Amino acid sequence: MIETKGYAAQTKDTPLAPWSFERRELGPHDVQFDITYCGVCHSDLHQIRDEWNNGIFPMVPGHEIVGRVVAVGSHVQKFKVGDLAGTGCLVDSCRTCENCQHGLEQYCLNGNSQTYNGLEQDKKTPTYGGYSNTIVVHEDFVLHIPENLDLAATAPLLCAGITTYSPLRHWGVKPGHKLAVLGLGGLGHMGVKFGVALGAEVTVLSTSPSKEQDAKALGAHKFIVTKDPEQLASVTGYFDFILDTVSAEHDYNQYLALLKTDGVHICVGAPPTPSAILAFSLIPGRKSLAGSNIGGIAETQEMLDFCQDKNIVSDIEIIAINDIHTAYDRMLKGDVRYRFVIDMATL
Amino acid sequence: MIETKGYAAQTKDTPLAPWSFERRELGPHDVQFDITYCGVCHSDLHQIRDEWNNGIFPMVPGHEIVGRVVAVGSHVQKFKVGDLAGTGCLVDSCRTCENCQHGLEQYCLNGNSQTYNGLEQDKKTPTYGGYSNTIVVHEDFVLHIPENLDLAATAPLLCAGITTYSPLRHWGVKPGHKLAVLGLGGLGHMGVKFGVALGAEVTVLSTSPSKEQDAKALGAHKFIVTKDPEQLASVTGYFDFILDTVSAEHDYNQYLALLKTDGVHICVGAPPTPSAILAFSLIPGRKSLAGSNIGGIAETQEMLDFCQDKNIVSDIEIIAINDIHTAYDRMLKGDVRYRFVIDMATL
Repeated sequence: MIETKGYAAQTKDTPLAPWSFERRELGPHDVQFDITYCGVCHSDLHQIRDEWNNGIFPMVPGHEIVGRVVAVGSHVQKFKVGDLAGTGCLVDSCRTCENCQHGLEQYCLNGNSQTYNGLEQDKKTPTYGGYSNTIVVHEDFVLHIPENLDLAATAPLLCAGITTYSPLRHWGVKPGHKLAVLGLGGLGHMGVKFGVALGAEVTVLSTSPSKEQDAKALGAHKFIVTKDPEQLASVTGYFDFILDTVSAEHDYNQYLALLKTDGVHICVGAPPTPSAILAFSLIPGRKSLAGSNIGGIAETQEMLDFCQDKNIVSDIEIIAINDIHTAYDRMLKGDVRYRFVIDMATL
Repeated sequence: MIETKGYAAQTKDTPLAPWSFERRELGPHDVQFDITYCGVCHSDLHQIRDEWNNGIFPMVPGHEIVGRVVAVGSHVQKFKVGDLAGTGCLVDSCRTCENCQHGLEQYCLNGNSQTYNGLEQDKKTPTYGGYSNTIVVHEDFVLHIPENLDLAATAPLLCAGITTYSPLRHWGVKPGHKLAVLGLGGLGHMGVKFGVALGAEVTVLSTSPSKEQDAKALGAHKFIVTKDPEQLASVTGYFDFILDTVSAEHDYNQYLALLKTDGVHICVGAPPTPSAILAFSLIPGRKSLAGSNIGGIAETQEMLDFCQDKNIVSDIEIIAINDIHTAYDRMLKGDVRYRFVIDMATL
């Protein structure tokens, strides 16, 4: 077994603290990479506090993981020692169901293996995430990270990046389209970058007038303060797509009114409570309220290759691992532009 | 002007009663047809009672109208005296907006002219519907009715038919697809017929076990009683599409769980009150909750031609106009299989 150092929550009521654990010896198709950086996702906090009631403890969070390969199994074809490597939200899936066969491992019908707070495909071995110094993953779930990009700033591509890239690609966002990005946080700022890179006209919808300058700097063409009824009314029936990254409660009907005929409101942020929706918000313009969850492995690699071509990374703030508690506090206040990334050398 | 006899509600609080009014003299592109049959839509009752708060009184309801042409304007190309003719929910639209240009007059951005309780494109002349003996409509909004079908039973195709046909075509329902039709009423029974004719496997989801025999007779392959948790659970993740014809309040989340990955729940019934929806009902399977409103004029003609080819009509009960009050009472109780049609000879 491979001795591993990390930060874990021992229970839902205890804060993250140093913890040593073991990773498996490499199988023939396994890749081991030492973790250089790990992004901090809002879901890390939800899960260590067991707010989704599915916690497996001790829990080592982190699913925006990049580093360099230090060992490969005997049959590994896709990686060699020294390569940059990354892992996102998934470390395995059944590989046999209809969805896995179509590259939709994120929707595996038999239950995929989440990178942390999950179980391996044996359905009993817990998975431990990227707030740690090294990781062992089957080569099919390891991504190639572009060498030309700032490594720390690539980490959030593995969750925030693919979560926004995948729906924009799935719904075919392209030049001529008008895209609204609702909420300018970790997901939203990536949505803006991808929307712009795909050629759409991008408008940021935000409650915070203070974010206008950032939105424009990220490439957004327009900025609408959603608390201003006049500004909001000015974009009634305007958008082809709304990429909704907000995980606080909000009124979908208000935003559906901003869509054109056949427009799609895509939820990637998930409010914990239900929201009231009127069928009349959908019927008169043949509109859709849809959801999307991360992306498949091949699509994640496609996204990374796209980032390599377009020189896209996240806007980040690097922290030491023992600053994680402060980082969580700031994240809860929305005081992060736009993703914390842990420098694992500080472990 | 053309003297016309009909049934009208003089106010929202008075019942339908005989009323005489005038239709316009034929313009060069107008078609006049004498009304043989008019279907009774649930929305007729909503509107004469002003339940949507947009009533224009006196109101002559009816938007499932068929009959024979008795006069045509000097420039009319598409119809001649003696032809069968029909009109559905629309008698005009702006014809210039992006949607009208694309055959989506039902989503006219400048406001289309509803067949009754609407205004002509001059935005001041009220429209009067099909509970009457004759009607004058621009030829572009008159449909050719197949001669091979039972005429009375074609009337409901103009609303119940196109409302269900249009979304099935828009979302591309075809052989290999599993389609659920939620609710077996005027809309639902047409959804079953079209779904079967398009080659899908059709399942009726209904609260009433008593409708199983009817569902099967209409061509449905399966029948699920939605009040039975075991039956409902047996179709979890099963359907590509749900055609939701229910206009009473219901829980969308329960039905979204029945969809496959990328499945679409299409609302054509519109509950008057909002329904609570969880983003988590959409995100894990990239599902959509969508709406659809009747259909465009060209698509309505396509639907009628499809019905001609496939020998599809509505299941109806013919009534005399003075039975309309009893018919409404029965409609409210769901006691109609599956559409009342008024024989206008009884006027």
